[in-house]
Amino acid sequence: MTKQIHLTRRSPYYWRVTINRPPLNIFGPDTIPQLNDAITAIETDEQVKVVVFDSAIEGFFLTHYDFLAKIEDTTSLPLGPTGLQPLPDMLVRLSRAPVASIALIRGRATGVAGIVPGGGPMARLPRLIGRGRALEVFLVADDFPGDLAERYGYVNRSLPDAELDEFVDSLASRIASFDKRAISETKRFIDVASLPPDYEIAPEWDVSFASIMRPAAQDRIKKLMEQGFHKPGDVENRLGYYVGQVGR
Amino acid sequence: MTKQIHLTRRSPYYWRVTINRPPLNIFGPDTIPQLNDAITAIETDEQVKVVVFDSAIEGFFLTHYDFLAKIEDTTSLPLGPTGLQPLPDMLVRLSRAPVASIALIRGRATGVAGIVPGGGPMARLPRLIGRGRALEVFLVADDFPGDLAERYGYVNRSLPDAELDEFVDSLASRIASFDKRAISETKRFIDVASLPPDYEIAPEWDVSFASIMRPAAQDRIKKLMEQGFHKPGDVENRLGYYVGQVGR
Amino acid sequence: MTKQIHLTRRSPYYWRVTINRPPLNIFGPDTIPQLNDAITAIETDEQVKVVVFDSAIEGFFLTHYDFLAKIEDTTSLPLGPTGLQPLPDMLVRLSRAPVASIALIRGRATGVAGIVPGGGPMARLPRLIGRGRALEVFLVADDFPGDLAERYGYVNRSLPDAELDEFVDSLASRIASFDKRAISETKRFIDVASLPPDYEIAPEWDVSFASIMRPAAQDRIKKLMEQGFHKPGDVENRLGYYVGQVGR
Repeated sequence: MTKQIHLTRRSPYYWRVTINRPPLNIFGPDTIPQLNDAITAIETDEQVKVVVFDSAIEGFFLTHYDFLAKIEDTTSLPLGPTGLQPLPDMLVRLSRAPVASIALIRGRATGVAGIVPGGGPMARLPRLIGRGRALEVFLVADDFPGDLAERYGYVNRSLPDAELDEFVDSLASRIASFDKRAISETKRFIDVASLPPDYEIAPEWDVSFASIMRPAAQDRIKKLMEQGFHKPGDVENRLGYYVGQVGR
Repeated sequence: MTKQIHLTRRSPYYWRVTINRPPLNIFGPDTIPQLNDAITAIETDEQVKVVVFDSAIEGFFLTHYDFLAKIEDTTSLPLGPTGLQPLPDMLVRLSRAPVASIALIRGRATGVAGIVPGGGPMARLPRLIGRGRALEVFLVADDFPGDLAERYGYVNRSLPDAELDEFVDSLASRIASFDKRAISETKRFIDVASLPPDYEIAPEWDVSFASIMRPAAQDRIKKLMEQGFHKPGDVENRLGYYVGQVGR
Repeated sequence: MTKQIHLTRRSPYYWRVTINRPPLNIFGPDTIPQLNDAITAIETDEQVKVVVFDSAIEGFFLTHYDFLAKIEDTTSLPLGPTGLQPLPDMLVRLSRAPVASIALIRGRATGVAGIVPGGGPMARLPRLIGRGRALEVFLVADDFPGDLAERYGYVNRSLPDAELDEFVDSLASRIASFDKRAISETKRFIDVASLPPDYEIAPEWDVSFASIMRPAAQDRIKKLMEQGFHKPGDVENRLGYYVGQVGR
């Protein structure tokens, strides 16, 4: 199996996890065990303090789920240690890991509209950006430029492309200079104040999966596929636009 | 009785609710049953996916309660299906309705300071814009321009007047093209993560009503009335300013 | 003992609490009883409606804890009426006091990184600015300019120096013109919706104190002291920079 998730140790304290599933960084069932290995390493390593997630693919940070994969490849995966399905399990574990994690998002980070999203976003996003804006993000389901994402509080900061790498590297290096125990204890308190309980996240996955299986969504996905979904090109480059056209 | 709340079906999926109580869109006890009919239709219709609330009155979206109405006209109204008083009942039901709702606010949306507001705002606003800014909004009780409201996260977006209609229409049409069940299931998850419990909203109404009845508020309202409150003119146009003068 | 906390009554309704511990407004154990007197007065006075906290020291609003003070001077202080340690006790009581409180922050408001902060910030800040930005504030632990603090929602507003006094005075005078009972009842509802429970705040102090006692933090503080920490000069003026250098 090709390596999609690359873990690089810039130092014992500062790691990078780079997503590399050409050509579009579509997330599939085969990505899950690889990402799980990275998360487990982050959870259990005694030295790492900060992890930056980035992408090796130009124009794409991480895109929607792989709708061409066989359903059994997803449904046959065992539940994770939290009792959640593998994808939300890993996201929850990363949230609680005793390190700082930073997403260096360069390029698209997409989902697919017309379905209920799964994995925790509906429990998390309203707590981050407020109810009204979260409703807009989910129900309008359009592309979202970085500057608007910053205004909404969806991302911490939107930076010019030329400054992004240095900015993130500087933050990560700074965090890496601090005491790991102080980082993990501080984060644990923030977790108590800000993480949704797992029981809010658990039902999202089943409802999301059921929504994908419904004829309305299958028809929508089929139409997008006919136009070039899952292939490099305009549909993936402007997915928000095409998602808005397909139901009219 | 004059029709104050107009429900227009732009399509089976996309409705408008237009508030039209000339000359100022003051909300009164006679508005309540009409708005209730609209909310009930939104809750029970099997096709509607998105509802835009707007105003037919230039300069005013929706203003404060009608302090000229007889108190019994308000207090005699029966509790709603949620067990809350009619106004908070409708607002709570709209929050939970299985559709997207959008407020197209053109013009003033006011309350009256010197009293405790009722209907749920104190339970809702701190969750939307944070404690510090919510305290400012309620305790300073001044007019709030749209751009500042956007910076505070009070509204999703502040737009130039010339762009507002097209922007909202485009959002609503887009939502109307999606699957109703996906919309309602997604919203239900967001509700769990972001709506205050009804028991936080219930006591607001009684405390608000009691605060209006106190001599301090009655005196304040009387002075505002003498200056032109409830009539078209400078007091209603710059209510924040006059509210700040009346207690000095 | 020198007076560090000055309570001035601009009117029976509008008070100022001015912090004056030259040369840097470092907060020490000897500040606690004085601040406690001010908080008690705010809690129990029957007329005061709004309190503005400001600083008498140019360039500094309120800085980190006094690491030169004897530890016993801090640990020997009795628990406050809430059952919390004196500093978080006072902050919690101020949050719940039946008045509006405004921090007029002119100059630095710092902590010290490499330790777990104490007193409630981790319970409070994620609720104010969201999880992602709160993690950045605590784990990156760098200086934060006012405009960025406003964009993050950390402060309500960032204003040009020349406008700050008049803006705050205008807000405070306006609030002082309203009904005290309406202010306190409104605030109590906002408290229910936005204050963290005391049991989230209680453990922060002990964990913070233990983190300061660890060799990693003691070494860090010692190095900073050698460079000029706790004295007027570049280390206190650019504490974020020096905190980022000391562990590399």
